[in-house]
Amino acid sequence: MNFAIESISNDILEKKLQSKIDTKTKPVGALGVLEKIALQIGLIQNKENPELKQPTVLVFAGDHGIAKKGEVNPYPQEVTAQMVYNFINGGAAINVFCKQNNIALKIIDAGVNHDFKEIENIIHAKISYGTKNYQDTPAMTQKQCATSIKKGAHLVTETYNNGCNIIGFGEMGIGNTSSASLLMAYFTKNTVAECVGSGTGLQTEAITVKKSILSKVFDTYTPASPLEALATFGGFEIAMITGAILKSAELKMTILIDGFIVTAALLVAHAIDNKVLDYCIFAHASEEQGHQKMLDFLGQKPLINLGMRLGEGTGVAVAYPIIESAINFMNNMASFESAGISGSE
Amino acid sequence: MNFAIESISNDILEKKLQSKIDTKTKPVGALGVLEKIALQIGLIQNKENPELKQPTVLVFAGDHGIAKKGEVNPYPQEVTAQMVYNFINGGAAINVFCKQNNIALKIIDAGVNHDFKEIENIIHAKISYGTKNYQDTPAMTQKQCATSIKKGAHLVTETYNNGCNIIGFGEMGIGNTSSASLLMAYFTKNTVAECVGSGTGLQTEAITVKKSILSKVFDTYTPASPLEALATFGGFEIAMITGAILKSAELKMTILIDGFIVTAALLVAHAIDNKVLDYCIFAHASEEQGHQKMLDFLGQKPLINLGMRLGEGTGVAVAYPIIESAINFMNNMASFESAGISGSE
Repeated sequence: MNFAIESISNDILEKKLQSKIDTKTKPVGALGVLEKIALQIGLIQNKENPELKQPTVLVFAGDHGIAKKGEVNPYPQEVTAQMVYNFINGGAAINVFCKQNNIALKIIDAGVNHDFKEIENIIHAKISYGTKNYQDTPAMTQKQCATSIKKGAHLVTETYNNGCNIIGFGEMGIGNTSSASLLMAYFTKNTVAECVGSGTGLQTEAITVKKSILSKVFDTYTPASPLEALATFGGFEIAMITGAILKSAELKMTILIDGFIVTAALLVAHAIDNKVLDYCIFAHASEEQGHQKMLDFLGQKPLINLGMRLGEGTGVAVAYPIIESAINFMNNMASFESAGISGSE
Repeated sequence: MNFAIESISNDILEKKLQSKIDTKTKPVGALGVLEKIALQIGLIQNKENPELKQPTVLVFAGDHGIAKKGEVNPYPQEVTAQMVYNFINGGAAINVFCKQNNIALKIIDAGVNHDFKEIENIIHAKISYGTKNYQDTPAMTQKQCATSIKKGAHLVTETYNNGCNIIGFGEMGIGNTSSASLLMAYFTKNTVAECVGSGTGLQTEAITVKKSILSKVFDTYTPASPLEALATFGGFEIAMITGAILKSAELKMTILIDGFIVTAALLVAHAIDNKVLDYCIFAHASEEQGHQKMLDFLGQKPLINLGMRLGEGTGVAVAYPIIESAINFMNNMASFESAGISGSE
């Protein structure tokens, strides 16, 4: 499948936007990163008065074959499904932060090892009851991977058609820091050991075991393409986010990038088309140790760095008001002229 | 004048708060700094369910004798009054960000070189039409300094009596980075050159001149106490913020600390009673180069670091939703028990 992503580069509009920013009643550059965000979103939306419409976070949940054994994850696999119920019931961190900041929230079953058939308030997009264990065989087939990407893309199109122009992604999946670490090693060329961290809270000794297991897995495969790497290491939720990111960029939406797992999905999307970065704002730096190296690889500095490592899209939801501030100063501050204020000498 | 500030230390309550934080549906510690803020505000408010009431930013404006010459400031002194009108008319950055985040905003004439007599929507607390130029004589008398501190404290008491329990401060005053630099040199023992930055936007050569002028000023005086340093280097807005900070701590309010100028006022308050730090949350790291050294001196890490250097309290207003997130997860997230979720193994 192909995504037609255009660069946001536009010298004439950029000049106009920068001039608008510079004539606001403040010293030039005094709003720092907020000014860069206002400029970027102006270019993404191709207008001098950018606006944020129906901000939405899509949380994709999926299970991972390797997690059944409990060797790489301190929480049992059942927690994925239990947390999905927590999302549905409004009790998780992502619910609280989305509610606070008026962000719409959608929960997607991308491939949880549990039957949600009778449940409402969840989007049913299950590929399978969890991926296979890549210790034995690739996590998914190429066909499952392609289907996941298509479903992620389709869900973004639906959200876009409902009027959303700024979107973020979250995930839930016991074991998915392992997939993300493997993808990170593949795309950034760091060693697996450099990519592995504590996940939901492994202690030092268990991290050593995780590194050893995943290094062995990594050396078993030689994926020939980004999509083959994605299929090999999983998971369904990461593949759906990859498709969702690519489609969001194609639709010229502003994309808010969360932590370690979502950035792993972005690494895949970026390998497919690096213009996707034009549309991305990096919400937060995760405490999961590999995330900073991913950000360095992509040359990005996130908005907040608060030692969070929860996933679910919580970094996006907490950082979102900063994006609002960028758009609000752009649209609502007086200019030196309109306020009758002397300029600098 | 004396402020009776109590330590927030309370081992029993701290244990209860930490237990509440740790049983929320997330790995222990996974909300990072948000967890520390929830704990701190719980201790400040002495309750397990802390809440934020009527968040308010007080912006103090004052003029500085030295600014008349234009040697240390790229904008003319008139801009202080012009910006006060901009605040009153709702066109400044602080207006936009306070409105966005439902923060009440009050503008105080602490000592602007302009007559606002007929103007409403401003709190009249003028000490004088600007401070004196410390190149010739101390910026204010000890009596003016004491009056400023009292007025700042009084305004906080009023705000508190109206139901506010979380407060931040902003400032406007052409030339006030010079006062802040001198106070910083006095309290942190850095050289004046290390404390001086570009303010509202001086170029390299002009910064050298500013360093030279302020070093000479600094060497002229030997203030014998924190209050004498404050009176010597000014300004009225900084002195009022000092009094406001001390009173806020006495009243057990949560205090949001903005950038370079407000932190200079905090240095004075801290020298008077270092328990004031128990009540402070550091909102942002200013791009003004001395601010990071101030934060290091106080041993603090701020919530956001977005390259902002505008003052007005904008760092507080932009970072405020992060505080809300801390309180919201504390009060509204499910616990493992209430959500029926398995713990880690």
